[in-house]
Amino acid sequence: MSKVVVVGGDAAGMSAAAVANRGAQPVELVVFERGEYTSFAACGLPYFVGGQVPDAARLVARSPEKHRANGIDVRTGHEVVGIDTAARTVRVRSTADRREFTEPFDHLVIATGASPIRPPFANIDAKGVHVIHTIPNAVAIDAAIRSRQPRRAVVVGAGYIGIEVVEALVSRGLEVTVVEKLDVPMATLDPDMGERVGAAMRAMGVELKLGVGVEGFEMGADGWVRAVATSSGAVAADLVVLGLGVRPNVVLAKDAGIALGPTGAIATDARMATQVEGIWAAGDCAESFHRVSERPAWIALGTHANKQGRVVGSNVSGTHARFPGVIGTAVTRVGSTEIGLTGLNERAARAAGFDAVAQSIEGETRAHYYPDAAKIAVKLVVERGSGRLLGAQIVGGPESAKRIDALAVAVWNEMTADEFSQLDLGYAPPLSPVWDPTLIAARLTAERAR
Amino acid sequence: MSKVVVVGGDAAGMSAAAVANRGAQPVELVVFERGEYTSFAACGLPYFVGGQVPDAARLVARSPEKHRANGIDVRTGHEVVGIDTAARTVRVRSTADRREFTEPFDHLVIATGASPIRPPFANIDAKGVHVIHTIPNAVAIDAAIRSRQPRRAVVVGAGYIGIEVVEALVSRGLEVTVVEKLDVPMATLDPDMGERVGAAMRAMGVELKLGVGVEGFEMGADGWVRAVATSSGAVAADLVVLGLGVRPNVVLAKDAGIALGPTGAIATDARMATQVEGIWAAGDCAESFHRVSERPAWIALGTHANKQGRVVGSNVSGTHARFPGVIGTAVTRVGSTEIGLTGLNERAARAAGFDAVAQSIEGETRAHYYPDAAKIAVKLVVERGSGRLLGAQIVGGPESAKRIDALAVAVWNEMTADEFSQLDLGYAPPLSPVWDPTLIAARLTAERAR
Repeated sequence: MSKVVVVGGDAAGMSAAAVANRGAQPVELVVFERGEYTSFAACGLPYFVGGQVPDAARLVARSPEKHRANGIDVRTGHEVVGIDTAARTVRVRSTADRREFTEPFDHLVIATGASPIRPPFANIDAKGVHVIHTIPNAVAIDAAIRSRQPRRAVVVGAGYIGIEVVEALVSRGLEVTVVEKLDVPMATLDPDMGERVGAAMRAMGVELKLGVGVEGFEMGADGWVRAVATSSGAVAADLVVLGLGVRPNVVLAKDAGIALGPTGAIATDARMATQVEGIWAAGDCAESFHRVSERPAWIALGTHANKQGRVVGSNVSGTHARFPGVIGTAVTRVGSTEIGLTGLNERAARAAGFDAVAQSIEGETRAHYYPDAAKIAVKLVVERGSGRLLGAQIVGGPESAKRIDALAVAVWNEMTADEFSQLDLGYAPPLSPVWDPTLIAARLTAERAR
Repeated sequence: MSKVVVVGGDAAGMSAAAVANRGAQPVELVVFERGEYTSFAACGLPYFVGGQVPDAARLVARSPEKHRANGIDVRTGHEVVGIDTAARTVRVRSTADRREFTEPFDHLVIATGASPIRPPFANIDAKGVHVIHTIPNAVAIDAAIRSRQPRRAVVVGAGYIGIEVVEALVSRGLEVTVVEKLDVPMATLDPDMGERVGAAMRAMGVELKLGVGVEGFEMGADGWVRAVATSSGAVAADLVVLGLGVRPNVVLAKDAGIALGPTGAIATDARMATQVEGIWAAGDCAESFHRVSERPAWIALGTHANKQGRVVGSNVSGTHARFPGVIGTAVTRVGSTEIGLTGLNERAARAAGFDAVAQSIEGETRAHYYPDAAKIAVKLVVERGSGRLLGAQIVGGPESAKRIDALAVAVWNEMTADEFSQLDLGYAPPLSPVWDPTLIAARLTAERAR
């Protein structure tokens, strides 16, 4: 029976373990998790801070106890500190007593996740300066709001995490300022679409300081943050949350000589195998293949972690499986404004070597005569000439974001905008105009692409 | 300059006229419409009756005056009563003075639409027995509700129109009974999914009489309906709406010797040409090609009418265009329960010769920990062995129905359930679980199909 060791007990690691545990060939399985939680929904943390999720424990999809009840040997409080690829062993340290031991493996699954970026800003360790990546992080923000009743919050960074934290802090009643070094929020969107997100935040009463870099934090005598020092002066702050994104946790792999890819994450093939036989990687620490750019991509997202984990779980337990890659689909929300994205934006399409043409339209989410139809903007990026759909972006009111899914399936299948415009999509007045805005966008983009 | 005559000024006819009017080659264009409206949204009528749309005039997307301002010669109150395919003329009658005249054409576009089914039930002409197909129909229902304040309504038929009328009448405060001769509502769904729609209507306080046939109407001395005579006894009714579907208006075409197809609608090729050179058909009177069954299909829906009209408009004005066919996508709603459908249901898949396997799942529309996640049921129909997606059905709470679009794009592209399960779809806790219910359905259906 082959011995499978999993490093990391979150989405990717536990998905791998769960699938391997009931695989075609029985395996001996052990999961080492340095923290105390397993399978928790990091994406849900802003909604705990915002108050929509009343109890952080609800974010744990499956506890260590439940995994154990399913026959999976999960050892929380155990950190893997070294991999010996020649000896086929890992070095494990117990968090409680710092004791170390060696565990042999036939298959090793690296699912070490990612960590939030914390630049070496002055006084970054001041009290009241937070990241939001784990349950303890979110509990700490919630506790700070409860105990200190801060009035002014600064969110550093206006990407996904940043805007989700903005929504959370606004709904907790704080005055929120966003400091973003780029000129537009949401750099995964093209600037014209990102500006719509900026307008939505301003309409929520949020102050945006764009094109402004953070230089450090000013700290009071009590050790608590009182302002953010920026390239355009100090911004008073009782609470700061860093939303500067994450980096893959690759030190363990790198130190063991396991190759990283061009994105800095662990290089993998379509089976999620690393370049060392019998060592696999999945989730936020691993690189994926982007089906549109046809290049390695690193997109830290729970959906990919779950799918990649399942693929690895199959491969280490006797059933061949492939991860078909990603196309960069993402949705989120700030207040009542929803955001959807798939494929390549204009800039990324050109960087990938495409002669890209883009077209935006404004429409509505429902029939024009139906109450509460929301505005929706759809932007499509296509290849000039062929009209092949390379990417799509949506910013709009309620019921906008998940419209990206139909476009994602089209991008995945390499449909052209003209083909998309002829699709048979669902229509009923309370749910869609007779021409869904995505169809209108496709028609106009197809004309433009010729 | 070639002369284009369009018969019918609704979605298909006016789309054809609008496109032809600005086509590659200039055309001389005249549209004959027997009624007084153009381009009105028949699908919106239940929402006028329900009170969501305060003014029926809002359902007119573009009035005859606006079309004329765009340079289109629309003659309302003019009915085309005959086509002479040899002489290339139509016979036109003015509604106002019954005068007839002959109009020559080079291209003729038949866009005569469909009419509601009114079986020869006893006393079907009783006052208070309505169909809902035109603005005057809907205005009459609204007027009857206002003037007579009926308490008990019977809706005959539990298909799309029936359930939309049910919602409308419930929201107007009536006690509603549905009489349906089949054993389950929504026969376009498989029975297990149709039963979910039935349960939703019962939860709204609607009484369902299933497997019950209508035999006629009982009329009071004042000429108003007072009961529906059915195979299981009389059902008291102050108001009746027939929701028995529609039939294509093909008498004009048939009398002119223009071939009908197996569905009873006008036979067309991929250009929407009939079998007579220079005569075209579009919209509810015309047949389409079903891309999954690979057979002619007749699906009366505004989206197809608009698209087919555009295709014909191109073809009569010098630009070759094809209508790529339909896959039977439809969405609707009854109360807060949404319904989506695409491709073939189990029964239709078997009738089309497929060895079909189906699988249903129950999931939620949002992350399990996020408030107001609604239940959603997803059923997929696939081909055994290949796992090719043949169709999908969704019944669920708010934000369920339009999830059918991603499945529609997949059915269109002949993806397998296994491929679908690996798709990169949008995920964020307020908008979707980490595994969208459509992905879970695809995964389990793929396993079942092997």
